[in-house]
Formats: sequence, structure tokens, C-alpha cells
Amino acid sequence: MDIKTHIHEAFAALENTTPLIHHITNYVTVNECANVVLAIGASPIMASEISEVAQMVGFAQALVLNIGTANTQSIEAMLEAGRAANAQGIPVVLDPVGVGATTFRRQSVARLLEQIRFSVIRGNMAEMKTLAGLETKSSGVDSLEDESDALSIAQGLAKKLNCVIAITGKEDVVCDGTHAYTLCNGDEALRSVTGTGCMSSSLIGSFLGATNNPLLSAILGISTMSLAGELADKSKGMGTFRISLFDRISKMNASLVLEKARIYLKG
Amino acid sequence: MDIKTHIHEAFAALENTTPLIHHITNYVTVNECANVVLAIGASPIMASEISEVAQMVGFAQALVLNIGTANTQSIEAMLEAGRAANAQGIPVVLDPVGVGATTFRRQSVARLLEQIRFSVIRGNMAEMKTLAGLETKSSGVDSLEDESDALSIAQGLAKKLNCVIAITGKEDVVCDGTHAYTLCNGDEALRSVTGTGCMSSSLIGSFLGATNNPLLSAILGISTMSLAGELADKSKGMGTFRISLFDRISKMNASLVLEKARIYLKG
Amino acid sequence: MDIKTHIHEAFAALENTTPLIHHITNYVTVNECANVVLAIGASPIMASEISEVAQMVGFAQALVLNIGTANTQSIEAMLEAGRAANAQGIPVVLDPVGVGATTFRRQSVARLLEQIRFSVIRGNMAEMKTLAGLETKSSGVDSLEDESDALSIAQGLAKKLNCVIAITGKEDVVCDGTHAYTLCNGDEALRSVTGTGCMSSSLIGSFLGATNNPLLSAILGISTMSLAGELADKSKGMGTFRISLFDRISKMNASLVLEKARIYLKG
Repeated sequence: MDIKTHIHEAFAALENTTPLIHHITNYVTVNECANVVLAIGASPIMASEISEVAQMVGFAQALVLNIGTANTQSIEAMLEAGRAANAQGIPVVLDPVGVGATTFRRQSVARLLEQIRFSVIRGNMAEMKTLAGLETKSSGVDSLEDESDALSIAQGLAKKLNCVIAITGKEDVVCDGTHAYTLCNGDEALRSVTGTGCMSSSLIGSFLGATNNPLLSAILGISTMSLAGELADKSKGMGTFRISLFDRISKMNASLVLEKARIYLKG
Repeated sequence: MDIKTHIHEAFAALENTTPLIHHITNYVTVNECANVVLAIGASPIMASEISEVAQMVGFAQALVLNIGTANTQSIEAMLEAGRAANAQGIPVVLDPVGVGATTFRRQSVARLLEQIRFSVIRGNMAEMKTLAGLETKSSGVDSLEDESDALSIAQGLAKKLNCVIAITGKEDVVCDGTHAYTLCNGDEALRSVTGTGCMSSSLIGSFLGATNNPLLSAILGISTMSLAGELADKSKGMGTFRISLFDRISKMNASLVLEKARIYLKG
Repeated sequence: MDIKTHIHEAFAALENTTPLIHHITNYVTVNECANVVLAIGASPIMASEISEVAQMVGFAQALVLNIGTANTQSIEAMLEAGRAANAQGIPVVLDPVGVGATTFRRQSVARLLEQIRFSVIRGNMAEMKTLAGLETKSSGVDSLEDESDALSIAQGLAKKLNCVIAITGKEDVVCDGTHAYTLCNGDEALRSVTGTGCMSSSLIGSFLGATNNPLLSAILGISTMSLAGELADKSKGMGTFRISLFDRISKMNASLVLEKARIYLKG
């Protein structure tokens, strides 16, 4: 697939369908995730009561599961919603926030991977190495890892888990087991705002709800956030940067991505 | 009641009393709701632990219940707080977010309506049609409904539920069973930010805590949000728009509402 | 200790160590707390699942407990995390939001004080009088108290609880049982934004994670917020003020604090 030929289509699909993106996500960045979904032109619904999630996800075009502040109840709701999504062919994104940090997170993600078929999994290098069963120097939710072997780890994981793997870092790697891309946009300032990772996953979910194309959606979700980070106003401080980021995302379009995104086919 | 003669009084009451508005609300827009209450000059308190809500609501001048991310526990807390509010004559607002979407939401709202006397219920057309027992084309929390029969639905519901009904949409309708008003302010951009509906309900609660006048409060809560939406800066994107919205709400006053609000008595 | 000679060291320590600050906090201002921790140069982790908090806090350099929307489950998680932090010598900050308002809050804080050794407790006058066993005119989470006896209350509490006490108000008082300081910066506008108190506690936690010096951290956490409030743009309304506050915090540094902070040794 020549990704670039599909970018106009993807943005048009978003505009034409306004897909509903069901989230079961953390309480830290949930408002940001809802707003980023609106900013890109999709529609968010957050619902995590176990007795309603299977019904709710039936209205959605994609489901985003994020374990940032997961607890035993929300993991059960994620399993319930994920199984219902799978049964109805609704694509599912996983953001395994800080999966390596605690036994609870590792076991919860293991259950999610066992019971749910994911279309895209996005995380940082420490999270992805944990999924790959490799040693990490995790400290909570930030990654301290060397990123030079991202490509081979992504390829291995994509094959093992049979889904698109997106590893975000200085350079991002997106791989579907057959093709791999590196994405070379972004700005350090994105690390100074909470939730830019979570929001990237929500953007991936938004494109996925519009296109049902996991590889394209992972690339566009991440590129949208990275480009917005490059373009946003960094002169006044992190408050203004955060607001400018939303401004830029709400103005993002296919032409801008085609002009500025540095997306390279690697294998 | 000639609504317009009471607008100065309502803003003055807010300023003189700084009413405390107890919320049991969703975790997506809860920060926005707290800030909007502060912006209009009231004081927010969010508390949802079932063993404390009855005691907490006793300090409040109004209670706002919003089921956006309700779960079985928070519904019990809402019932507990609502009954305590009723017993003490503290007015209660209901925002039945996405009530038509799931069985859990329908049953929860049915219990709330059975056990609590509400002063104002605010929702979109799909939510209100669900309350009225009518067919809807609900898709999660957004309304896809024709809004031409809003007036008759509001009138019917206001009589049936014996409270003020506020249906927000392109035009808003507010009705107390006797009098009905249409409100013709607002801006499409308000739909591009999460929580403008929730915030309208919190503004209604704020005016209600200051005036104990449900009809006036519904009109002023909605008009404040609509006017702020008209006046807010839409040139830079949705990040700036959201911030500008809070700026405008914090500068709202009776004279501005009297000058710009298009409030029409309909019956 | 001459506080001022340590201010450059404290900011340098933050920059050199990027301490991880574990929060168990309320769902209203949690995003603000995460962003303020990033703005000052530390790293936030929010996790409240009881089965993981003891493990998670082991990665952290400080723990912040905030009871703003505590429930029976989160209090158990706070106890678990606090005990683990104590066992590993990780300093703990308590923000007893609205402790006087309900029996649940009073009993929960009593349990926290019994089982956990705190380095800093920060609250408003009503909260601190409640901790001191004095009568209050509490109304929810805002303080209506006379603040003239803050110094003696802080001194008494610091000795009784064997920790640094910080009472924030028009003037702030910080006391470690031996030395007491008054802090005379700040701006009324800080009361028009939700979470400035919570954020002050998170800033204290950030400095504490970097320096392990409770008295210095309480002074710097509060002074950072107060100075940012003085410097932030108040001309456009509370939306812009809130954003400007984050801009100012992210630009805060030792020289600015030394130039502008009014910190007075009182005893």
C-alpha cells in the first residue's frame, strides 16, 4: 500500500462519517481524549459501566482501551467491551500505559491480549518491550529505553500479536508484520504535556473508525499529533502550547499531512 | 413572569450568595463543570462517595446529577443525594446524558425520576424523546433527531414530570408546563468541544442555587453558554475557542444577556 | 536553615532528577495536577488500583494523597500506598480537601494520620482547624475562616503531627514545628480556578521528590503557584488566566523566586 495515496481518502472518510469512538480510558487524560476526537472530526463516547459497555460499543465504529488508571472493575469492562467489539467486527485499539510497572498491569494486559483481537497497539518503547517479553528499565509510565531496535521489536510483535504495532518515541515505528514505516515528525515539547500518548491512541481510533485500515490509521493518528506538536506555539509556555496543540489538530487536513509528514517505508 | 425583569436580580443573587453547587457527574467533563461554576460566580463541590453525599448536599444550594459516565455505584450515590436534597428543599438538576443508548442508562434514569423530584431536566432532543417514551435514532450521546417538535415534547414532558424541561439544540426550548420559551442564540462551534451540554446543566444549577427559580435558571444557564459560544474566538481552532468560552462566561453579566439574548415566549 | 540559599539547589535538583510523583487524587483536578508536575519539571504517575499502588509507589520519589473525591476504595489504596512509601522512605504529602465537611472525610483522614507518617500536610484554614480539633464554619471545600491565628495553629499542628504544616490563604503559613514562615505572594484570581490548591500540593510533592526537604518544598511549592498567579494574564477572563498560569509555572525558576517571593521567617 502506498500510504500517501490514501491520506485524502482517510480525512474525507472522517468528515463524511463522523465515526463514534468508544473509550474505556484513564481519568487523567479522558477530557483531552474526548476533545482530540472532536478536534479531528470524530465523536467520542466514554462509558465504563460493565453492564452497558457491550451495548454501547455496538453504536461505535472503533473502541479504544487505555489502562492508564485501570482498576479491577475497568479491566472487566474492557474485556466485556472488547469481546463485543470483536464479535461485531468493530476495530479495537490498545494503549498499554505503563504495562511494565506493576504486576497488575502486566496481568491485565495479558488477559486483554488473550481475549481480544486488537487492530492497533500503540505504546512507548518500555511498554512494547514489556509486551515482547524483553527486559526494561521502566520507571512508571515514562520510557527510558534505547530506541534503536524499535523496528525489529515492532516487526516481531506485529507478527506475534497479529496486529499493527506503533512504537512512539523520538522516531516512531509503525508495522503491520509485513510493512514497516518510520515517522520522523514531532517535538520534544509533546513530552511536557500529559496525555499526548493517550491522545495519539484516540486519534488512531478516530481514523480507524473512519477507514477500518489499521496501518493507515496508526500512521495518521501519530503523524497528526507529531505535526501539531511541531506547528504549535511553544513561545509562551506549556499552557499555551497545550491549547495551540488542539488548535492545530482541529485544523489538520490531508494536504498539510502530505506536505509536512515525514513517513518512510522501511521494510 | 416576564423573564427579562428578573435577569439583573439573578446575576446579583449569584454575586451576593456564591451558592455551593454539589455535583455527582461524569469523569470526562467534571473539571470543565467545576470551572464553569466558578466562572459564573458560584462554588462547585464534587463528591460521590455514597456514605457522604447526603451530608455533603446539606451544605449546597443546588445539586446537579449527570449520568455521562454513571456506574451502578454512582447511581446509588445520586439516589441518596437526590433524596436528601428533596428532603431539605435543595433544588436538583438532571442531565440524562445518552439515556437512550443503553438499558443501564434507561433503567437508571427511570429510578432517578421515580425517587427524586427534579427542578430542571436538561438534555438534547434524543435524550428528551427517550424520557417521553418516543422512538429515537440515538447513536451514543449525540442527537440525530428532527427538532421541529421540541416545543410540544417539552410541554408534554414538563407536565408529566412536573418540572422545567430544557431541550437544547439549534434552537433551545425551555418549558415549565405553563410557559414555554425558545432561545435562539448559540454557535455550531459549541458542538466541537466536549462538555458544553454538561456545562450548561452546571450553569443552570448555579443560577438555581442563587435564585431557586427553575424556569429563569434554565433560561439563563443555557443563554450564558450560547452567548459565550457566539462571542468566543473561533479563528484559531478549537483549543483557543474552548479557552475563550471560559473567558466569556467569566465576563457574562445581566446587561450583556439583556442586550444579546434572543429569548422568545412561545406559549 | 536560611531558605533562600537552598532555592537554586532545589530547582537544580528538579532539573537533574526529574522525580516521579505518584498521586492518588481526585478526578476533578487530576489532569491539572499531572500537568503542573510536568510544568515544574517532574514526572507524574497517577495510579489508584489497590493491588498495584504499593508496587507503583516504589518507583516514585514522592507520593501525594488528595481526598477531594475520595471514596472507600481509594482511601484503602491511599493507606496501602502510604504505608509502602513510609517503609521505603519515600516522602508523602497530604491534601485533606474538605476534611471538615463530612464524617466520611474526617474518619478517613483520621485513619490516614494514624497509619501514615506525612512529610507535609497542606490545606486551607478550615481544613487545618478541623485537623487541630477546632470549631469551623466549613461549607464544603472552601474556607470561611478568620486567618489571623494561622501561625499558632500551624505551630501546634506541626508539633502534634510531627510534620510540616502549610496553611494556604491570603497569607500562607508554613511551619515545621521549629521554624515558621509566612508567604505573602498570590492573587485573588487563583480562587477563580478549580484545583489551585490541589496543584500547590502537587508542586510541593514535586520539590519534595527532588530535595527530600519538606519545609523548603512546602515553601517553594506554594510560592511557585502564588507567583505564577501574580504574573499570569488576568485581562481576558478565567480561561486565559488558567492557561497563563501553566505558562508561568513552566517558566518558573530559582532567580525569579528569589527576586519576587516574599518569604518571611516568623519564629
